Amino acid sequence: MTNTPTARTRAKRFHDRARYDAETVHAILDAQPNCTVAYVIDGTPYAPPTLQWREGDTIYWHGSSASRMLRQSANHQVCVSVMLFDGMVMARSAFRHSMNYRSVVIYGQFVTVDAEKDKKIAMAAFLEHVSPGRNAVARPPNAAELAGTRILRIPLAEAVAKIRNWGVEDNADDLNLPVWAGVIPLTLQAGTAQPEAGSAGYPVPSLPKSLQSERT
Amino acid sequence: MTNTPTARTRAKRFHDRARYDAETVHAILDAQPNCTVAYVIDGTPYAPPTLQWREGDTIYWHGSSASRMLRQSANHQVCVSVMLFDGMVMARSAFRHSMNYRSVVIYGQFVTVDAEKDKKIAMAAFLEHVSPGRNAVARPPNAAELAGTRILRIPLAEAVAKIRNWGVEDNADDLNLPVWAGVIPLTLQAGTAQPEAGSAGYPVPSLPKSLQSERT
Repeated sequence: MTNTPTARTRAKRFHDRARYDAETVHAILDAQPNCTVAYVIDGTPYAPPTLQWREGDTIYWHGSSASRMLRQSANHQVCVSVMLFDGMVMARSAFRHSMNYRSVVIYGQFVTVDAEKDKKIAMAAFLEHVSPGRNAVARPPNAAELAGTRILRIPLAEAVAKIRNWGVEDNADDLNLPVWAGVIPLTLQAGTAQPEAGSAGYPVPSLPKSLQSERT
Repeated sequence: MTNTPTARTRAKRFHDRARYDAETVHAILDAQPNCTVAYVIDGTPYAPPTLQWREGDTIYWHGSSASRMLRQSANHQVCVSVMLFDGMVMARSAFRHSMNYRSVVIYGQFVTVDAEKDKKIAMAAFLEHVSPGRNAVARPPNAAELAGTRILRIPLAEAVAKIRNWGVEDNADDLNLPVWAGVIPLTLQAGTAQPEAGSAGYPVPSLPKSLQSERT
């Protein structure tokens, strides 16, 4: 990553929320697999939700080789967006209500991962993000499954993170209003694992680091 | 809503996951304020994360009147995407790993809400979604705050929901592999409210219905 904003990533507003360093961008991408990948067909935007994973300064996503959206987005301009909703910011005035969040937006062109050996490495890395250690026990993909999977990647060359992680910003005039103000934090939490029949004897898969700490 | 898929919303794959009825689309939109709004400038897609709220068959979003993204998306084709990550589906084969989720994708053109009285109604509805009852205690927006807010709306005329909410779909050949398989559910949960100084004596704001049941 370059640490330098471009015309597309330079924050126009809320400059105090924008970050361009690799450490911040990487941490957000690693904490949130959900993303949308926006692309354009005949002037119309499409932005299907999907999953991304990161290795170094590259992010990946995948789908069926038959998917129109993966065909369309390869070698075209795309915009990948990731967001974590971290808290509700409750102000004394309606106007100053806000949210705490972490987001990353990435611009650029995806390219396809073509060689079977590279696809195998990428898919194993994805599964390792989802559940560390899972590759050691799950049946690996066979040649037909790899052929049926399209994998795209994009460099983190043009990316911006935005973070709001602080309290209420009420106007000075409103500070004495008789209203509760503060932050209500939100976290994604893993519930009780629900095994399929016949699974009870095997170890429950591990969770990604971003969820582990919240599991009881 | 029309209940009828269009060229843009008709599911090309995973037909068993697609729904076009108002009840399903509304429930997902009401459960997830986070969204991305994708739009096109000079052929390039942009898809900033933001918040949406719904009233009847219309969704709204808002931002600063000075925001480029709100100016650009008004009266243009946009694609609004919403997603809830409900669970990790852990299969016996790497290839069959999946996720449970609920998503909605909406296509169409936003229009601006212009009249001050309509903006007031829309912003009050938004706050009511965020925290039922909050309008009764928070200071309402004044004329300058309303003038500084741009509100856009889009009808739910062309929308598709997708839901995966079931278990593992392993190949028959893999069912006897010695691996745990099942679903690990995920939910967004509210933590302990963090009051600002001086707030301790006032009632903590209520949470939206989608979070209430998870609050201890």
